Amino acid sequence: MNSQDQKKELLKKNALAFHRFPIPGKISVEPTKQVRDQNELALAYTPGVACACEEIHANPKDAYTYTTKGNLVAVISNGTAVLGLGNIGAQASKPVMEGKGVLFKKFAGINVFDLEIDELDPDKLCDIIASLEPTFGGINLEDIRAPECFYIERKLREKMNIPVFHDDQHGTAIIVGAAILNALKVVGKKIEDCKLVVSGAGAGALGCLELLVDLGFPLKNIWVTDIKGVVYKGRKELMDPDKEIYAQDTSARTLMDVIPDADVFLGLSAGNVLKPEMVLKMADRPIIMALANPIPEILPEVVHATRQDAVVATGRSDYPNQVNNSLCFPYIFRGALDCRAKTINREMELAALRAIAGLAEQKVPAELEAMYGKKFEFGPEYLIPMQFDPRLLWTVAPAVAQAAMDSGVAQEPIADMDAYRAKLQNSAK
Amino acid sequence: MNSQDQKKELLKKNALAFHRFPIPGKISVEPTKQVRDQNELALAYTPGVACACEEIHANPKDAYTYTTKGNLVAVISNGTAVLGLGNIGAQASKPVMEGKGVLFKKFAGINVFDLEIDELDPDKLCDIIASLEPTFGGINLEDIRAPECFYIERKLREKMNIPVFHDDQHGTAIIVGAAILNALKVVGKKIEDCKLVVSGAGAGALGCLELLVDLGFPLKNIWVTDIKGVVYKGRKELMDPDKEIYAQDTSARTLMDVIPDADVFLGLSAGNVLKPEMVLKMADRPIIMALANPIPEILPEVVHATRQDAVVATGRSDYPNQVNNSLCFPYIFRGALDCRAKTINREMELAALRAIAGLAEQKVPAELEAMYGKKFEFGPEYLIPMQFDPRLLWTVAPAVAQAAMDSGVAQEPIADMDAYRAKLQNSAK
Repeated sequence: MNSQDQKKELLKKNALAFHRFPIPGKISVEPTKQVRDQNELALAYTPGVACACEEIHANPKDAYTYTTKGNLVAVISNGTAVLGLGNIGAQASKPVMEGKGVLFKKFAGINVFDLEIDELDPDKLCDIIASLEPTFGGINLEDIRAPECFYIERKLREKMNIPVFHDDQHGTAIIVGAAILNALKVVGKKIEDCKLVVSGAGAGALGCLELLVDLGFPLKNIWVTDIKGVVYKGRKELMDPDKEIYAQDTSARTLMDVIPDADVFLGLSAGNVLKPEMVLKMADRPIIMALANPIPEILPEVVHATRQDAVVATGRSDYPNQVNNSLCFPYIFRGALDCRAKTINREMELAALRAIAGLAEQKVPAELEAMYGKKFEFGPEYLIPMQFDPRLLWTVAPAVAQAAMDSGVAQEPIADMDAYRAKLQNSAK
Repeated sequence: MNSQDQKKELLKKNALAFHRFPIPGKISVEPTKQVRDQNELALAYTPGVACACEEIHANPKDAYTYTTKGNLVAVISNGTAVLGLGNIGAQASKPVMEGKGVLFKKFAGINVFDLEIDELDPDKLCDIIASLEPTFGGINLEDIRAPECFYIERKLREKMNIPVFHDDQHGTAIIVGAAILNALKVVGKKIEDCKLVVSGAGAGALGCLELLVDLGFPLKNIWVTDIKGVVYKGRKELMDPDKEIYAQDTSARTLMDVIPDADVFLGLSAGNVLKPEMVLKMADRPIIMALANPIPEILPEVVHATRQDAVVATGRSDYPNQVNNSLCFPYIFRGALDCRAKTINREMELAALRAIAGLAEQKVPAELEAMYGKKFEFGPEYLIPMQFDPRLLWTVAPAVAQAAMDSGVAQEPIADMDAYRAKLQNSAK
């Protein structure tokens, strides 16, 4: 066994033990109120509970006052596009969804029920999720395959009056957007002059593209490739309306054909698709986001051996610049829930993106450097904040809430933003 | 304001405060595994979590090893028959469902996601619930109106391979059955000689009737009345197949017509429907189960002022013999989950019933008497165990598991029943 295989075996052994002992799984549901005797029981359950029911019946908004709804998000998957594992089904996706719930709680204090739903039909899946609106304050869709995921999210956003967020699209897009903005700052280029080449056209890639266009990448400078090669006008195979937007009128057919002079490469596809000879053809100071996991489109050491002027980010925690959705989803929901936003709109997403990007330019607290055992300074090796940075909570969530209020979707605006920030800072202790 | 109203106002004030402070609602979802740094995160989430997913994908049973599924029950309502409040809708039912979850955890250590589903159509509701099978180890249906609830439970039991239990039917039936068995012992009557008069024909009443027939009440001795009077052969109004079973060929039309010589009155209907003049006409040593809540069919003090030989039970905690489902549902699920029963069958229900009834004949621990501030001795004032009796856990759950194993529905039989009992006893400390 080589050392790579040994490492993998060890990870498997440890991860399975972690999931199994001392009790199976990663979450529990706990009472927040004591029910020690008949008197407390009479408040928590019959007859007292009927008073809370009656208040909510008279005024549905009171569900946010007397139940957990306002701090409860559903993490929902049908298991059709789980991590790099593909369509492994709802049951096998449960460890991921529980893990997502753990991160929501750890980073933003949000309660999560993980729901693994055995339903492939997009319309039926929408009906199921929409029927759960009374239960939840928000819906985080997860690991649902493209292209259905676009339709599902759009339809649910129309049907539901609580925030719906497909993290694989928008969460990824927000972190990628923040990292690219900062990388452009580091290499001193303007977004409107840049050529972007994308490998991959799944939920993540298309979610990123939509946001990157909003950030200023001209559509004409964007080249998308997928498993069938370049996405070009007239291509028939494996096309859908969401992908068609990026089809170029071109005779180029391969990644090698379109990579020359690219300023930014964004990979959300498969391991090792970006070759050193392609990197050599990219523009000066190229930005390479190689986000396939666990094997990126190109390893950072391969990039650096080829081009010393490149800036690289991956999805992995063992390299600098880990693009990880957990920098966003806990905090975007925290902000959305706290002002009771009825949706998560583009303004809120951009606010989260800018808050995350901005945080990377600030001095990193000594405790955090101690935790990671290294120094961080804004630059090619530190484009975005670290996952365990506690400042994300009181930086990103208030920015999201403010954007919700400014764009008119906050149903309970936060009156005192400073007090809110202080409360979040306090809760992180 | 009279003292009754004052008491109600105080309850409302306290119950609303209880639900509101310090945080809204009664439950939280908590990680059971620490995720303090990048290393632990790599086990709980990517890349380690993929190992657990792959195991489950290869062997679906492993969901019980690597996720919370095996100790996770859904408490599900569509809000159509909530407590005594009726069809108040899914949203307003949430405080009850959260409370139910609290009891599951408190009494049997079971995690509960409460799902309030906005769907009235029985078939669609079944599809929604069935699609959630990958998420849960069991389904507890709650506060779904009759007659749909019968159809829904039956259909789900056919479709699903995890236990499905409609607590309003079966939970109530089990406690009522235990209380009646013990009451018959106290008054020295045989079940096969008794006349039973039932007021009410909803989910609870019909659930009880089915079980009481199995316990030995002859069908010919059973008389059912509801809001339209006696259920008789040929009645057209408000009939359904589940009710039709109990229709008598009779010219009797009112409760007053059928109550003479009744040995047992079972009320699951509305306050004050059983009048003193009716009680006077009942047989010697009548058994009166007046379970309407909060106002019973007749108050115990009214019974006792009328008939000193009567044995009375209510649904209220401020009178002796509180018939309360929490004596059953936590433990029947505990037993079912622990041997991975694929359903909850009649054998398991009867085992729970007999275990609960049997426990009431045993000496009550001093700590429990201290907690309630009174003495308990098997007899007319103590027919069934108290809600906070810790012995229920290690008495009822093993009886249920044993019945599941004996009836061939246990997928993971418990090898050492004594060790299992000891483990439960330990966990209650």
